[in-house]
Amino acid sequence: MVERLAAAERHKALQGVPGWREVDGREAIARIFTFKDFNEAFGFMTRAALVAEKNDHHPEWRNVYKTVEVVLTTHDAGGITRRDIDLASAMDAIARQFGVA
Amino acid sequence: MVERLAAAERHKALQGVPGWREVDGREAIARIFTFKDFNEAFGFMTRAALVAEKNDHHPEWRNVYKTVEVVLTTHDAGGITRRDIDLASAMDAIARQFGVA
Repeated sequence: MVERLAAAERHKALQGVPGWREVDGREAIARIFTFKDFNEAFGFMTRAALVAEKNDHHPEWRNVYKTVEVVLTTHDAGGITRRDIDLASAMDAIARQFGVA
Repeated sequence: MVERLAAAERHKALQGVPGWREVDGREAIARIFTFKDFNEAFGFMTRAALVAEKNDHHPEWRNVYKTVEVVLTTHDAGGITRRDIDLASAMDAIARQFGVA
């Protein structure tokens, strides 16, 4: 099983995904993506969903028109793991293809 | 522009979509759908997204693995309109195809 990152490892790993912040009161990371419109927002979600499903590691996410709020954590590990950092990084890469840096 | 439904009309319209409830403190309707797994939950979302985009009327929704929480309101009208009831009904029909009654 993948292991929960301790604080120092977590802080280091988060430097690789600077758009993400740690969630207050919960071991999780979050980012809000804002796209041009619903088409792009849901296009992003669809691509991210395929990555999530392939890796069997899924986001908690909320979509309102052109925004997508994502929270990532690893329930099995009780905190943030490498899998969250990897999914965050993959989502960033997909968002960049929609022009969201 | 589509008109906000007054209370009596709203209550009558909601009888046609019995899985939906009015949201406390806000003129909106909500339903939580629970599917078998992420594949079915996101499959539902994809089909619903196409309906939403076609009708230019979009949900607020949150997905956590196999659950999809949906809130519908018509921002332009400041409340619940026929468009919300229609989207609720369309989402119910899609969910039924995934075996969710």
